[in-house]
Amino acid sequence: MRLALVGQLGAAERQSWLTALQAALPQAEWVEAQPGAEVDVALVANPPPGSLRGLTGLQLIQSLWAGVDRLLADDTLPPGVPIARMVDPAMSTAMAETALWAVLSLHRGFFDYARQQREGVWKHLPQRRTDEVGVTVLGLGEMGLAAARRLVAQGYRVAGWSARPRSEPGIECVSGDAELPALLARSEIVVNLLPLTPATRGLFDAARLSLLPQGASLVNLARGGHVVEADLLAALDAGRLRHAVLDVFQAEPLAADHPFWTHPRVTVLPHAAALTDARSAAEVAAQNVRAVLAGELPLHRVESGRGY
Amino acid sequence: MRLALVGQLGAAERQSWLTALQAALPQAEWVEAQPGAEVDVALVANPPPGSLRGLTGLQLIQSLWAGVDRLLADDTLPPGVPIARMVDPAMSTAMAETALWAVLSLHRGFFDYARQQREGVWKHLPQRRTDEVGVTVLGLGEMGLAAARRLVAQGYRVAGWSARPRSEPGIECVSGDAELPALLARSEIVVNLLPLTPATRGLFDAARLSLLPQGASLVNLARGGHVVEADLLAALDAGRLRHAVLDVFQAEPLAADHPFWTHPRVTVLPHAAALTDARSAAEVAAQNVRAVLAGELPLHRVESGRGY
Repeated sequence: MRLALVGQLGAAERQSWLTALQAALPQAEWVEAQPGAEVDVALVANPPPGSLRGLTGLQLIQSLWAGVDRLLADDTLPPGVPIARMVDPAMSTAMAETALWAVLSLHRGFFDYARQQREGVWKHLPQRRTDEVGVTVLGLGEMGLAAARRLVAQGYRVAGWSARPRSEPGIECVSGDAELPALLARSEIVVNLLPLTPATRGLFDAARLSLLPQGASLVNLARGGHVVEADLLAALDAGRLRHAVLDVFQAEPLAADHPFWTHPRVTVLPHAAALTDARSAAEVAAQNVRAVLAGELPLHRVESGRGY
Repeated sequence: MRLALVGQLGAAERQSWLTALQAALPQAEWVEAQPGAEVDVALVANPPPGSLRGLTGLQLIQSLWAGVDRLLADDTLPPGVPIARMVDPAMSTAMAETALWAVLSLHRGFFDYARQQREGVWKHLPQRRTDEVGVTVLGLGEMGLAAARRLVAQGYRVAGWSARPRSEPGIECVSGDAELPALLARSEIVVNLLPLTPATRGLFDAARLSLLPQGASLVNLARGGHVVEADLLAALDAGRLRHAVLDVFQAEPLAADHPFWTHPRVTVLPHAAALTDARSAAEVAAQNVRAVLAGELPLHRVESGRGY
């Protein structure tokens, strides 16, 4: 089998991927992705547009990252080749940890205590039980579900919204666009884990943010394109929203002069809520490579009409 | 029954306690604690030394707070009257949440990311799985056990140390002074939830801190007296310790000019890791009041030789 590793990776990161992939696929021959090259499977990590142009014999494009919105926006992808997302339980676990940390921090006031520390203030804040805090998780894919279940396990009142109906023990499942406004209106903490599609781009604009109750908080762990950043800033500055935890942004890395960096009510993470762990993800990718080369269908194939 | 509520409470806090206690003990007559007063049970919240001097007929001193070290240091307490600690499941839950938040923050680098945000730095930090992180909980009382179990549920490798032997599923239980140095030497994160007694005062001095592995972190949620603050600062400044999360201090409130406030590797909380929730704690206290007035023994009685 002829494989290519394609993407914007630092040298150390590229090496750790190659080491893990070579261990998982010892028979593979690794080739450069260049026009005319014969490549069975391209393993891609945020490849620059055009990277896969002209490859021949391609049977699978396996993303090493969970999000494929940037990949799908590349109109030079070889047509008809199946694309698979990375669905790695270790990544979902990392995402659930980050969601839990953000919700605990908001619920128990730890961001406020950090602000008090900067100001030298010693003051108790009200303490509530988890069953008094309503958390809404938007998106019940692998990551959203992992996050929602982790929150349920701590006792939070958890609602989960998905485009299509779901049913999950302990989670109040709500689905469809029509139900979203009423759900947002009773969501104290919103954790966004939706895929970025034409339907979800710009979801958090001024109109939708205004549906949230006074003092609500937003945790965006999905994609920067979900949030209209100027509208979020306005809602924070007006005191309508209490805090935002943002792992993703319209432009990454976040520009040095972006107001989020210094905003007292914004926590900035550098797109680190769930890093791919090459050790486990390489094994997940290898299973798909073996499946496709054995004539089977890959797992977690992107549905063209759905966008993820 | 004649009850007195005694302690350094703000007006609003005192009122919320009285409301909750009156709901839990509707037959009680509330009296002032003054020398010569007849009082069946004193409900105390950090009472100034001498507050209970000269009360007559006292059958129980029920602390509304979990820690009783300051109370026991008052040598004017009426002799022979049983003292009970507050053991409220809601408080143990709050403590477990704080311990989990601190450990997640350390494990996933969220304190480091906060520092990067202040410095405008966009950079990934290494991400590890919970089963690669060794956490030691010192003290396996109600709070330590609640914290240790919560950490086990997230997949951390958890060791628990207690003065006397314990056995708990999923927790590596270690006991006795002789075993402590070897345990500390392999503890990446130490969560202190010990009672403050003559045996544990000053536990974290330069010698014991030097046992921790390079880059370890300390989470002190117990008492300020457990830590020799100058020694902790020296270990942080020398780069031997990575971070300290401190909820308690030698003197509280923390002095305005204390170096902890501005230290980049110290997170200061205002003794808020687990606030007593008057709603549930009043019911716990009421059960003990009813037990004692019915001639039964109170629960969670302080053992005089043990100090908690």
